[in-house]
Amino acid sequence: MAGMTETPHTWFANHAATLERATEAIKDRGYWSAYPESPSPRVYGETAAAEGEAAFRGYLDAKFPLDQPGITDWVATERSPFGVPLLVSYPHVDPATLISSATAALPAWRDAGPQTRAGVCMEILSRLHAHIFELANAVQFTSGQAFVMAFQAGGAHALDRALEALAYAYAEMTRHPATAGWEKPAGKGDPLRMTKTFHVVPRGVALVIGCNTFPTWNSYPGLFASLVTGNPVVVKPHPGAVLPLAITVRYARAVLEEAGFDPNLVQLAAEAPGEGLAKTLALDPAVRIIDFTGSTEFGDWLETNARQAAVYTEKAGVNTIVVDSTDDFAGMCRNIGFSLTLYSGQMCTTPQNILVPAAGIETDQGHKTFDEVAAGIAATVAKLTGDPARAVELTGAIVNDGVLARLSEVVGVGDAVLPSSEVTHPSFAEATVRTPTVVKLTAADAAVYGREWFGPISFVIATDSTAASIDIFRSTVLEKGALTAAAYSTSEPILAAVETASLDAGVHLSCNLTGGVFVNQSAAFSDFHATGANPAANAALTDGAYVSNRFRVVQSRRHTTA
Amino acid sequence: MAGMTETPHTWFANHAATLERATEAIKDRGYWSAYPESPSPRVYGETAAAEGEAAFRGYLDAKFPLDQPGITDWVATERSPFGVPLLVSYPHVDPATLISSATAALPAWRDAGPQTRAGVCMEILSRLHAHIFELANAVQFTSGQAFVMAFQAGGAHALDRALEALAYAYAEMTRHPATAGWEKPAGKGDPLRMTKTFHVVPRGVALVIGCNTFPTWNSYPGLFASLVTGNPVVVKPHPGAVLPLAITVRYARAVLEEAGFDPNLVQLAAEAPGEGLAKTLALDPAVRIIDFTGSTEFGDWLETNARQAAVYTEKAGVNTIVVDSTDDFAGMCRNIGFSLTLYSGQMCTTPQNILVPAAGIETDQGHKTFDEVAAGIAATVAKLTGDPARAVELTGAIVNDGVLARLSEVVGVGDAVLPSSEVTHPSFAEATVRTPTVVKLTAADAAVYGREWFGPISFVIATDSTAASIDIFRSTVLEKGALTAAAYSTSEPILAAVETASLDAGVHLSCNLTGGVFVNQSAAFSDFHATGANPAANAALTDGAYVSNRFRVVQSRRHTTA
Repeated sequence: MAGMTETPHTWFANHAATLERATEAIKDRGYWSAYPESPSPRVYGETAAAEGEAAFRGYLDAKFPLDQPGITDWVATERSPFGVPLLVSYPHVDPATLISSATAALPAWRDAGPQTRAGVCMEILSRLHAHIFELANAVQFTSGQAFVMAFQAGGAHALDRALEALAYAYAEMTRHPATAGWEKPAGKGDPLRMTKTFHVVPRGVALVIGCNTFPTWNSYPGLFASLVTGNPVVVKPHPGAVLPLAITVRYARAVLEEAGFDPNLVQLAAEAPGEGLAKTLALDPAVRIIDFTGSTEFGDWLETNARQAAVYTEKAGVNTIVVDSTDDFAGMCRNIGFSLTLYSGQMCTTPQNILVPAAGIETDQGHKTFDEVAAGIAATVAKLTGDPARAVELTGAIVNDGVLARLSEVVGVGDAVLPSSEVTHPSFAEATVRTPTVVKLTAADAAVYGREWFGPISFVIATDSTAASIDIFRSTVLEKGALTAAAYSTSEPILAAVETASLDAGVHLSCNLTGGVFVNQSAAFSDFHATGANPAANAALTDGAYVSNRFRVVQSRRHTTA
Repeated sequence: MAGMTETPHTWFANHAATLERATEAIKDRGYWSAYPESPSPRVYGETAAAEGEAAFRGYLDAKFPLDQPGITDWVATERSPFGVPLLVSYPHVDPATLISSATAALPAWRDAGPQTRAGVCMEILSRLHAHIFELANAVQFTSGQAFVMAFQAGGAHALDRALEALAYAYAEMTRHPATAGWEKPAGKGDPLRMTKTFHVVPRGVALVIGCNTFPTWNSYPGLFASLVTGNPVVVKPHPGAVLPLAITVRYARAVLEEAGFDPNLVQLAAEAPGEGLAKTLALDPAVRIIDFTGSTEFGDWLETNARQAAVYTEKAGVNTIVVDSTDDFAGMCRNIGFSLTLYSGQMCTTPQNILVPAAGIETDQGHKTFDEVAAGIAATVAKLTGDPARAVELTGAIVNDGVLARLSEVVGVGDAVLPSSEVTHPSFAEATVRTPTVVKLTAADAAVYGREWFGPISFVIATDSTAASIDIFRSTVLEKGALTAAAYSTSEPILAAVETASLDAGVHLSCNLTGGVFVNQSAAFSDFHATGANPAANAALTDGAYVSNRFRVVQSRRHTTA
């Protein structure tokens, strides 16, 4: 162990260039990625995919290898959208033990300082990257994402978002020096000389509450922002997507232990069915930071009740597209249709409301009626999902029964230009696969389109005019929130008006996407995810506000002695 | 007006060097000040003092010149601690009008962008600085501070703190570019190229709730941090200290108007007696930021009830000194005694609990008993307050009846090593002046020393040992909060133990102050005021967390066209 105590310092040096590059990237916001998004053997080696899948299979039907203190029993709560039996059991720990173990781990981690903590956190990311195929399989089979998406969003992009949060947090912790000299002139006498020390002090125990659809991508920023700023982290996964975070906790604990720190700085809080563990933990006075992704109902509950904590929430929203005109009708339909199809519309960023003037729009193909616009988008979806083998690589599987229930509910609320259909997965016969439905509505149907229909459900809504579309866009987002918005127009004044509405409503806007960039995708280090300025989220991933409240600066000062 | 529209741009250039220097100062945290703290004619000119006093006198017994919309009547609520009749009437505006006027002013201010806003805010500071003697008189006669302190804390230091907050906010708004190019490689095809625009979007209307003792110093950071980030500000002064903020609002509005902006970006919300205007405004859905300095009771109320807003509070606390040993007994007693005397202990940073081992301490003058330590501190206070003419230049006057009530209440709770006494002010016969009392207690008297006794009341508390003192320090601050802490010891291990306790309790620590730096004074750009890590305040003046949540970044993106 004696040689081991130097390890964290080596890690910081090892990863310093990456951290520095990430710090530049969050400043200039150009393209950059630290973790290749292609699962190709040319990038990751010939054996990586098979090894990762084998590691994933090794977890199934067994107790997950996690040596946390205070295990009372084991829980298995996951059911794969692909119909694959998982049967992984996770340690179930008394909440009080989770909190006391975390609290006991805090002082040494606090006193280690920003640089050592950053080195350890960077090393954790590095180890997770080494196990990216294992993570991708775990994400795929718990969330229902298709493999490539699970690899990208659940692996490479999640790691990029983690690194982004780390870079912000490290910059924030080190924007002040650790010590400073202060010398104030005092007339003809000697100046007053003080030496000042500035300590970064964590808030307390941090709680990360994961979601079912993006267990790593949505959890990593909060997890690493809290951890690097000195807070022990309790990770409470969604009962339906435990494995990706259990794997994360496993490798994080190994790194912490190797560095000579208490591994209880990162703990898994798996819960028994119906236990309500998130509520219990969220109300513990020692819990001072909470990151949550999930329903508006529970997010609002956390904001209202967990008053002792800084609470960061991402909740439901009504993502909107304003269609005014286009000089690339085919590209527009392709782009929108792809966005609706990806992961069966189960992204928090998938468009739901597509606002189109009832009188139709002008395009490079001439005037298109409202019905032609709706049909054009629907045709793309139909084409992308026509062949089951290709379809499932885009749609993945349906994450849970709530989505199926909404698909039933939406039948009959409007005129379905494209109905949802069942698809038999060529590889997983028990998988629950549904194609997206596209439903026509009118502006009068606000009771329908004015709330979130999470899943493969979108509405093409006939409005009086583009001006009316913009009004509906603004008011819907102000009231219900949104994570994304898009606009299609050949008119700069119209685009400017939509942009002003997006500032009023506080939502990010994508204009005239017709190629390989989609409104539901955001690029780490460049695009912000959510704004914190509308009801869909009270914070953005990632900006200064997301990290600066996770620690405090406590200073001491004394006379300078020569 | 045509020529006028260029003005804000000129202002930014005029003040750019100062803003840049401030930005350096908050990074390196050495000594710097933008506004000279000496009221000497050599600094400010021969006529400045007289002109400022005349301007102040010109406000008395008259309607304050403020042209806000929606004035319903006029209110006069101030009573000077110096017994000087003030009789200034302020416009009284319907709260709904304040909010609607502020809301209407927002879009143009938002769209002006960070640089223009910073230029305007810097110009406001410049104008306030040009009227610093006027402000100093207003602070003196409303707060009860002696003139020099009112000039420094209420004028120069308040402006420095405002500039510090501006510098943090400007840095935060401009850490991302306004636009960025993004180019992602796409295999053998053309790269994906996007142009991204990042807008700074304010939260909404900001409310600043001032206090009686430091109407400008405690209000300026929030006021300018909110304003420069695009939020219209409603300034609700304490009914006992309206004039300093009315003057501030007056000059701010003049600058805004000159720049072509709606002056309602800064409005005064003077209230009628018993109106409870702060509560009404705080619960308005349009109010999205609140800065408050005052009682724990109202601060907690705001945090609990103004859920739509980001709430920054500075509340009561129990400031503590741990006395273990010293190599400069005389210097220690002088330093502590001065801290207790300054503004009659009516600073939120004044020490209250002085923890001394019952067995006494080791000093450069040999062993000193507990009683000798208490007597040494009391002797300094007695000496500083012995001569009325000199005393009042330190103590100023008693701000309100609450302080007098506590002075009565404290009689008899312990053994007064120094009683409070009345002093007749040589210049203002009606002034309410009281000297500080120093009371001996034991560690068992937690019911007395465990809460804040705001005013000229301090306790020297006999503890079992320095270790016991540190425990009391830690537990009292964790429970009741503190803005300042100090320690005296010749032992590095003891100082380290106190520093660890200060990290645990989240309070800034000053060690072995024996010269011209006092625990109750913090220097802008170098010392943080409050930490946000204990119950005395939920934020620090000023750090990244104080500014980063006052705005959001909303982005738009589109394909890059060649």
